[in-house]
Amino acid sequence: MCVFVQKAAVDRVLSAFRSICGEDCVSLGEAVREQHGKDESVHKCRPPDVVVFPRCVEEVSSLAKVCHDHNLPIIPFGTGTGLEGGVGAVKGGVCFSLRNMEQILDLHQEDFDVTVEPGVTRKTLNAYLRDTGLWFPVDPGADASLCGMAATSASGTNAVRYGTMRENVMNLEVVLSNGTVIHTAGKGRRPRKTSAGYNLTNLFVGSEGTLGIITKTTLRLYGIPESMVSAVCSFPSVQAAVDSTVQILQAGVPVARIEFLDDVMIDACNKFSSLSYPVTPTLFLEFHGSERSLEEQVATAEEITQSNEGSDFQWAQDAETRNRLWKARHDAWYAAQALRPGCKAYSTDVCVPLSRLPQIIVETKKDLLESRLTGPIAGHVGDGNFHCLMVVDPNDPDELHRVHLFTERLAR
Amino acid sequence: MCVFVQKAAVDRVLSAFRSICGEDCVSLGEAVREQHGKDESVHKCRPPDVVVFPRCVEEVSSLAKVCHDHNLPIIPFGTGTGLEGGVGAVKGGVCFSLRNMEQILDLHQEDFDVTVEPGVTRKTLNAYLRDTGLWFPVDPGADASLCGMAATSASGTNAVRYGTMRENVMNLEVVLSNGTVIHTAGKGRRPRKTSAGYNLTNLFVGSEGTLGIITKTTLRLYGIPESMVSAVCSFPSVQAAVDSTVQILQAGVPVARIEFLDDVMIDACNKFSSLSYPVTPTLFLEFHGSERSLEEQVATAEEITQSNEGSDFQWAQDAETRNRLWKARHDAWYAAQALRPGCKAYSTDVCVPLSRLPQIIVETKKDLLESRLTGPIAGHVGDGNFHCLMVVDPNDPDELHRVHLFTERLAR
Repeated sequence: MCVFVQKAAVDRVLSAFRSICGEDCVSLGEAVREQHGKDESVHKCRPPDVVVFPRCVEEVSSLAKVCHDHNLPIIPFGTGTGLEGGVGAVKGGVCFSLRNMEQILDLHQEDFDVTVEPGVTRKTLNAYLRDTGLWFPVDPGADASLCGMAATSASGTNAVRYGTMRENVMNLEVVLSNGTVIHTAGKGRRPRKTSAGYNLTNLFVGSEGTLGIITKTTLRLYGIPESMVSAVCSFPSVQAAVDSTVQILQAGVPVARIEFLDDVMIDACNKFSSLSYPVTPTLFLEFHGSERSLEEQVATAEEITQSNEGSDFQWAQDAETRNRLWKARHDAWYAAQALRPGCKAYSTDVCVPLSRLPQIIVETKKDLLESRLTGPIAGHVGDGNFHCLMVVDPNDPDELHRVHLFTERLAR
Repeated sequence: MCVFVQKAAVDRVLSAFRSICGEDCVSLGEAVREQHGKDESVHKCRPPDVVVFPRCVEEVSSLAKVCHDHNLPIIPFGTGTGLEGGVGAVKGGVCFSLRNMEQILDLHQEDFDVTVEPGVTRKTLNAYLRDTGLWFPVDPGADASLCGMAATSASGTNAVRYGTMRENVMNLEVVLSNGTVIHTAGKGRRPRKTSAGYNLTNLFVGSEGTLGIITKTTLRLYGIPESMVSAVCSFPSVQAAVDSTVQILQAGVPVARIEFLDDVMIDACNKFSSLSYPVTPTLFLEFHGSERSLEEQVATAEEITQSNEGSDFQWAQDAETRNRLWKARHDAWYAAQALRPGCKAYSTDVCVPLSRLPQIIVETKKDLLESRLTGPIAGHVGDGNFHCLMVVDPNDPDELHRVHLFTERLAR
């Protein structure tokens, strides 16, 4: 292990690990280490020196204490579905794979909250909730661990209506680097709001594992809407699509999702997901509510899109068609990658005020063209947030350099 | 000044203050100091040693630096409308009264955001926004400074629909104790959401001035709803009123306000605001939306309240009647006080999971009775939050002792 100086120390640490969580829960195998050194991004695999699989918060705490005493880096690992290389062990160290902690605890149906361990994913929780009439709407696409979503402040297509993790985490149990266990909102508490003390919960949400290991997350739940309907609308220009978004939000339509796909992105999705939408700037929309409120939401939204020369809405009312549509949106990452087989995708994440969005997307597309780069654009436009999915040949240094220059310009 | 050791140091500090913001903006007068040592609560006045009135962030920064160099406590002061004694200079020091910084900056109508200085109150901002079709809904009752509301993580009757300050502050300019000026989300930035870096904005929201002086707040705005309607509904029991609240929220009715008043509270409001509602547990409700969605919201809510033996809704549809109703709710504090002339009100603030609310309110009322205390109860029940407004004779030590014991039990 690169981070240890002496063989004796290595043995001491490993034996401490084994005595805490048993032989089976400590792995030095190359395959296991490789698997825990990367996520779904283009970032290079940076395997940890050892992977541990604790089964409860007490084990996490004891393991952390050993790491702390030996000055070893700790890297928490959920599902590895991240897109930003956050799990890479850049200085070696110990990966805490939390998949064995997979309990769903303390579901309070009347209070709309639940507590989950790090091994519980978004889809597992929603399957568990199915008969309760409740759901957890934050949906970053991948079937990520909910504690990982808290650690990375995950967002997604529903954020315009339900908020991001920031608005939906009520409490966290966290193991600090020295093994101390804290509850950010107080032990066993699940306040809807609070102004007592510093807001530690939201300091840990988005801290990407740098402040501690999240071992439990208490989440806010929502009632499943009576009806949902999705629609697709094509536009003659980026401006027309984004203007429609701004006007729909200004009109107070409580739209649940509103996603922009540029011509390159919709083309990729058509090919990857066997769809046949016109290859022009496009909005995917979804409305949640009662039958009656849906009618009204849709009527207002359609009036606005048509005044911006949008096409008629193409409907997806039944669950299957809706799921197919949103799966296509969620698969945008793979669809982009499939545009150039053998290449890797690399996502940028830009959030700007809504009013500046059309101009920035138009400029970005121009820049991509001039830089000879493939970069379909998709965005949670309701929040002014868009992703440019760079599809890059990792073996072409000149192209990598152009990507680097492009992303630097974009960040500015 | 108690905090200074030497006369020479006092003179040096005062002369530094005067050279920064001018003779007129530094006050040692007793009346001014008294006025800045208390808020609207029962907490004893704790006057600062000196009050300064900076006019811009540069002056705040320079003044803070002087305080830092001389190890003097700094107490930021907005409007003094707090109810928890947060402005008291418990160890003396320098009060920064920020009322001279009263600019409204950077209104971005298309992006639904605006930036305000600490002298701008909630009502001033909404008056300024009147012609734009936008408003800022967080409403703690008093006409508080918006930066003060950020500092205290203010909430209010609208929180169930629009959230608290926590969800509606996008960026803060803060002067740290040593004079350093920071922007919690980056200078000039106003992201709808972000997962880049630690969430400093929400660390400062609710920090009560302990981490720095907020000199600018960037706020999220909302479209003014097409219609609003308020209703009052009386119930045979606390349980029936709270059950109705839970069921209305579970049914997904996007209620804008839902406020509980117990029999003692509604009696006080009737007397203070010349109303004539039945003296039983009561809900004040408000619905926002389009004409059509209102009809539906109201129909669902009324069906639920009637199934819980609530009375027919008493309507307040026109702006004047609505304002009268909510003014009565906002004046609950004074109404409680008026129950016992010569006494002071003292508010407790408790937030519990919704499912536990009826039991806790019933127990609290029983405890009040047994302790021979006057404590009308009002609550933002949509969040499980309620206030027991203790009306206390400050000259009766035995009563003060009973209040102390009661609040200790309540906090548990």
